[in-house]
Amino acid sequence: MSDPVKQIEPRTLRGFRDYLPELMIPREWMLEQARRVYRSYGFAPIDTPALEYAEILIGKGGAESDKLIYRFCDHGDRDVALRFDLTVPFARFAAQHIAKLGTPFKRYHMGPVWRGENTGQGRYREFWQCDFDTIGTTSNAADIEVALVIHDLLVALNLDKFRICINNRLLLNGVLDQFGMTDKAVPILHVLDKLSKIKRDATRQEMIEHAGITAEQANKVLDLAETEGTNTEKLDQLEKKFGASAHSAEGIKHLRQLLEVTAKAGVPQERILIDLSICRGLDYYTGTVYETFLTDLPDYGSVCSGGRYDNLAGLYTKQSLPGVGASLGLDRLLAALEELSLLESANTPAPVFIVQFTAERVGEYQRMARVLRAADIGVEVFPDAKKIGQQLQYAEKRGFKLALFAGPDDFARGTWNVKDLAKREETKGVPDAEVPALVKSMLTVYV
Amino acid sequence: MSDPVKQIEPRTLRGFRDYLPELMIPREWMLEQARRVYRSYGFAPIDTPALEYAEILIGKGGAESDKLIYRFCDHGDRDVALRFDLTVPFARFAAQHIAKLGTPFKRYHMGPVWRGENTGQGRYREFWQCDFDTIGTTSNAADIEVALVIHDLLVALNLDKFRICINNRLLLNGVLDQFGMTDKAVPILHVLDKLSKIKRDATRQEMIEHAGITAEQANKVLDLAETEGTNTEKLDQLEKKFGASAHSAEGIKHLRQLLEVTAKAGVPQERILIDLSICRGLDYYTGTVYETFLTDLPDYGSVCSGGRYDNLAGLYTKQSLPGVGASLGLDRLLAALEELSLLESANTPAPVFIVQFTAERVGEYQRMARVLRAADIGVEVFPDAKKIGQQLQYAEKRGFKLALFAGPDDFARGTWNVKDLAKREETKGVPDAEVPALVKSMLTVYV
Repeated sequence: MSDPVKQIEPRTLRGFRDYLPELMIPREWMLEQARRVYRSYGFAPIDTPALEYAEILIGKGGAESDKLIYRFCDHGDRDVALRFDLTVPFARFAAQHIAKLGTPFKRYHMGPVWRGENTGQGRYREFWQCDFDTIGTTSNAADIEVALVIHDLLVALNLDKFRICINNRLLLNGVLDQFGMTDKAVPILHVLDKLSKIKRDATRQEMIEHAGITAEQANKVLDLAETEGTNTEKLDQLEKKFGASAHSAEGIKHLRQLLEVTAKAGVPQERILIDLSICRGLDYYTGTVYETFLTDLPDYGSVCSGGRYDNLAGLYTKQSLPGVGASLGLDRLLAALEELSLLESANTPAPVFIVQFTAERVGEYQRMARVLRAADIGVEVFPDAKKIGQQLQYAEKRGFKLALFAGPDDFARGTWNVKDLAKREETKGVPDAEVPALVKSMLTVYV
Repeated sequence: MSDPVKQIEPRTLRGFRDYLPELMIPREWMLEQARRVYRSYGFAPIDTPALEYAEILIGKGGAESDKLIYRFCDHGDRDVALRFDLTVPFARFAAQHIAKLGTPFKRYHMGPVWRGENTGQGRYREFWQCDFDTIGTTSNAADIEVALVIHDLLVALNLDKFRICINNRLLLNGVLDQFGMTDKAVPILHVLDKLSKIKRDATRQEMIEHAGITAEQANKVLDLAETEGTNTEKLDQLEKKFGASAHSAEGIKHLRQLLEVTAKAGVPQERILIDLSICRGLDYYTGTVYETFLTDLPDYGSVCSGGRYDNLAGLYTKQSLPGVGASLGLDRLLAALEELSLLESANTPAPVFIVQFTAERVGEYQRMARVLRAADIGVEVFPDAKKIGQQLQYAEKRGFKLALFAGPDDFARGTWNVKDLAKREETKGVPDAEVPALVKSMLTVYV
């Protein structure tokens, strides 16, 4: 890469971005938390290619979605496209491998997806999704587990003020059936999905216009959606009003079980909200649906959403694959954590910095560094024997917590000097063998 | 995704593959080890977009490489391409952000790259690279650290029989200069790079044909490359023969320092081999070069390679950015670990399975599961109350280590039954509160 003929302007494509360490460190931490929680429930990782045959991806999310897909001809003149979500590739994956994998099959999948959308505040054309699903079972136990996973995931991400809003499409459909609106269910739920954003009057108006129902009918749906009371009170009311319908009764039973099991399993119940207005716009949800809101940032929208579907992979296989799952909006949540000041601001993943006092002693510096690394403490040794002031300036800018020094006198005595960079306190003459324990104890305040 | 009109054949593109859990679990483990080791040395994570302006990527690896690039027009009629390695995007990234980041800058970057190559044994069109580099310093301490990182990385991946082969282009160039072959250095080193594959006679013949040197000249180069003895003996011989050249002397000094520091830092010296035949074909390496071979699988080629370069980002900025780094061939190493039977064969990331004896007790099962998860033990609760035999069959197929059971009698007594699935031994009537400690102790044999 030497002898440049002409210089090229270094720039990223519109709607794409680089992740510098200050943002990538918390993003990796979030991915690690998600991975840990998914795995702790027995979800196994999978991966699928970024590129697929276009016919696999096109037509799965409607004409609007097709327009956003990056699609082109490859070297072999194949019509190919970049995945726009992880659900469609998972459907293809499941159809292809389920005979080998067996059911139930629990998987998580974390990776980038691409959409040529208009870019705006926090919207990028490449972003990560973190999906988890259990397929091959219709058991409500799997639905309940999704709520547990969402809960443990947000707790793992240091969030404690959030609400998992839960509803059941069986219940919604049963009620619409009793109201005689079954044939209008799809457009009604599409509009109802906007209730939290556009308020009751506007929602009613849209229902009248787009779903072709009367104001009276719209009010009945809205009354249902706005059912008030505690979770149990809501379900009791619904049972009284709609319990006669088999669908509604089934939906209510599933929601009751969800409350019961999550309580038993130790989830604080104020974090679970039965919310009859949640329906998720997507047509393929057929049972439990989930959305998750941060109490302090309600306008961020749902950071983890999903639901139960009857058949994942109908386009690719005749085998019916019912399932339930949800998707963590990693980048939206990253922005939220940033706004809530819940991210650390370090630019280095290592807490300890070793000053290179003299080039002759790099072996000693790296020896101590490896002793600390073996004790699971990250250590950077500065590569040049520059002035100490310059090295410390670098260390502070990067966000190291502690700096270790040793010059000729220290080597003669077998000691080190340890400096807390934030407190600007120095402990001098620490015997070599005592450094790891001291460093460990000094770092505890930062964890 | 209901009502399919016609079925689409579920398939991946030629040269691409799905990662099922049995392969993805070890792959995630490898990525985690690499991440941990890189971070422990203070390398910080970054990420760059999969898509770049084509002008950023085209022409960086020669015409052959350009033909392999996935390139197309996006929605905004931009000429774009998928990255084919992580080095070129890093060069663009560094030019764009180095003023903000400051130097030295240490980064790692792990992600997929795409090349429309001919596919063959273990060669895919999408594969992961795991690069790490220190830029903004010419200090040999950074070169030495690269060897330490490679060492710790392979150890973290459970490998103990490997050799990091190291050479220095300064030395090679100095010697070629003394031989009067400076103008032929590039083609000579290109051919020399093949020595381990095609043996001495064929290499000499190629040197004569492609580099236009005499047989006598070729023999001198090959004698150098095949210098024998211990690391120190080699350097002593070279010093005597070529020490008069400033370039050669500098190269020898750097190699001596590397041996001295890695020994001091505790690296078993049989894992470091000064190998004068290693030169890396790439033109841009100018100093230390590294290749890493597994003793038991020499034919796999190098699993971790790299070197020092004078200027990373000359195409994108006038600021000179010297650096040194290496790249872990993740997928090649995954294949190697598979061949060496160093991979666990589980299809689940969780070790503990809870049988769903009765649907009424899902709350109890999930309560115990969450207690174990809080103790950092992964637990899957089966979603259906199927026959126990069927559930255990599933658990064994997936590779769970332990199964927990509790039926009505157990709940009455407040006890659980714990079964070691491999040994087929069952411990009955374990009091609820004692389960976590017992499970933990039973799992220790599997870690």
